[in-house]
Amino acid sequence: MKIIVDCMSGDYAPDEIVKGALLGANEHKINVLLVGDKPTIEKLIKENNLPTEYMEIHQNEGENVTMEDEPSVVMKEKKSSSMAVALELLKKGEGDALVSAGNTGALLTGATLIIRRIKGIRRAALGAIIPFGIPMLLADAGAQTDCTPENIGQFALMGKLFMEKVMKVTNPRVALINNGAEEHKGTELYSEAHKLLKTLTINFMGNIEGRDIPMGICDVMVADGFTGNIVLKMCEGAGIFVKKTLKSLFFANFKTKLAALLVKSRLATLKKEMDYSEFGGAPFLGISKPVIKAHGSSKAKSIVCCLLQAKEYASSGIIEEFEKLAQNPQLYVKEEYRNTEEQKEGIE
Amino acid sequence: MKIIVDCMSGDYAPDEIVKGALLGANEHKINVLLVGDKPTIEKLIKENNLPTEYMEIHQNEGENVTMEDEPSVVMKEKKSSSMAVALELLKKGEGDALVSAGNTGALLTGATLIIRRIKGIRRAALGAIIPFGIPMLLADAGAQTDCTPENIGQFALMGKLFMEKVMKVTNPRVALINNGAEEHKGTELYSEAHKLLKTLTINFMGNIEGRDIPMGICDVMVADGFTGNIVLKMCEGAGIFVKKTLKSLFFANFKTKLAALLVKSRLATLKKEMDYSEFGGAPFLGISKPVIKAHGSSKAKSIVCCLLQAKEYASSGIIEEFEKLAQNPQLYVKEEYRNTEEQKEGIE
Repeated sequence: MKIIVDCMSGDYAPDEIVKGALLGANEHKINVLLVGDKPTIEKLIKENNLPTEYMEIHQNEGENVTMEDEPSVVMKEKKSSSMAVALELLKKGEGDALVSAGNTGALLTGATLIIRRIKGIRRAALGAIIPFGIPMLLADAGAQTDCTPENIGQFALMGKLFMEKVMKVTNPRVALINNGAEEHKGTELYSEAHKLLKTLTINFMGNIEGRDIPMGICDVMVADGFTGNIVLKMCEGAGIFVKKTLKSLFFANFKTKLAALLVKSRLATLKKEMDYSEFGGAPFLGISKPVIKAHGSSKAKSIVCCLLQAKEYASSGIIEEFEKLAQNPQLYVKEEYRNTEEQKEGIE
Repeated sequence: MKIIVDCMSGDYAPDEIVKGALLGANEHKINVLLVGDKPTIEKLIKENNLPTEYMEIHQNEGENVTMEDEPSVVMKEKKSSSMAVALELLKKGEGDALVSAGNTGALLTGATLIIRRIKGIRRAALGAIIPFGIPMLLADAGAQTDCTPENIGQFALMGKLFMEKVMKVTNPRVALINNGAEEHKGTELYSEAHKLLKTLTINFMGNIEGRDIPMGICDVMVADGFTGNIVLKMCEGAGIFVKKTLKSLFFANFKTKLAALLVKSRLATLKKEMDYSEFGGAPFLGISKPVIKAHGSSKAKSIVCCLLQAKEYASSGIIEEFEKLAQNPQLYVKEEYRNTEEQKEGIE
């Protein structure tokens, strides 16, 4: 098992990425192939006394991808960036999975152009883990702005498989994000998606409303990428708001600081429960090799989690499951719905 | 000034609605016209020793609207419900504004069919107040599932006027909810809406992402009603999550309960800041008379706030402002954009 790490992308690249990759590799005995500027990486190793036993370095020459780059053109303009080179190495089989904390749109475009989607999967979804009490998968969290009901159906099936195979959840509950509980609710896309989801071999629990999302009542939430991205970022915002609220509550004066001491251990548990980085990054579900998007603001600890997740994803056999799904969609339609009207409009 | 109150709709109707209406009327010297079952209301007055100086009662005979009723048909099927009768009374000028805690969809349909929209306003928006540090208006919070850029433009102009005239905010900052900060982001609806908003005489600050919503960085947020409803309910969910979190933090054992005592006054402030009901209900922006939707779970205190808000809304002259806007849309386009391509696709 070897994980390719894009060391030059992300808010804290290369320092935190290199640190996380090497500490994680050493701790968990995972081989890593670091893509980036060799002298810079070597300097970081020396300065931080980082372990190098499981490491190789691949020098890239060109200008790297920034968060401001336009996803649709950057992969053509920056073919020698660490991100593009890392994707090429993954394609050639120089590693089993790729972790990058760079520009999400650029990474998706690159993954689609260079690695390619699994044949039969119409759109790849960004599968983000949202920790509200339990880890929930949100797909699509922002890859596809415009979706069809069929796309959402595939996100649901891939999400279910991901929770089963990678997160080890038994019979994961799948919900459709919507503006009401009733079947017919939402735009045409959403009422059609609801109809389709009912026909699939998933544990479909119906629509979930915004109010219920932070309650942790399902395992997989599906939506189009526009809605999903707003939901993902609101969850992040809610987390930041909770932290800000607690800070303002406890750091006012001596009395409140004393109170903070009294709840210290519970505060630590809470912080851990709400920590996104504990669960690694977001995989691109539907791409034919494992590509994990680490959060843009990932620090070393988060990169370690992404390494573990990438290893789990690559060794879980999930890509083969996705291929099976794409090749035999009929197998994923409930028997009573096969060859019916509902299904004809659905996965084919 | 007389406020019509639909006493038979809402999770805690009629008890809390009647209590709130009469206590509010007495405290703020506002005349109220209670619509509902007279014997029930009179029994409540007697049992709770409620003040009746500013009150009239209008008996309705038919079956009342429930939360489960289908909005598109209920106004035809339940013409004698308290909600339908209250709307008819408002239409006839028997009161200056209407407060109802009932089924949102039914109230909107009723308001549109019975009271009617202002001529030239293409769609009415539900304008919800979201309190994250500051009160922010969200329009549309759920009235219109399918919107055009022009609808969103009108929501922005009405929202700006509401914040100025009713909430007394100077030069309110208007933002478009979207999945990224850049102009071109989002679905076609959102990139077109962004272009249009730039041409209007509003203090447009660009797109706002989900992450920034709980930060209170703008005064008006606009979106289509599907997205807006998910955002509204996620804000509610975030509030519930914060309360649940604080509870689990403080009610664990003796030590944590002691901590709660030490931050007691700050907790109370926090609770007040995050309390939706403090700001009243959600007006239907664009309806030709003031209709205020109280939260379904409104208790007496919240109904008092809605009464005050209805009075403020009715006396602010905002309906006239909306009429001006609908009749002379050119006046609300920045001079440099008048008769340009951007504007042609916009408000006409």
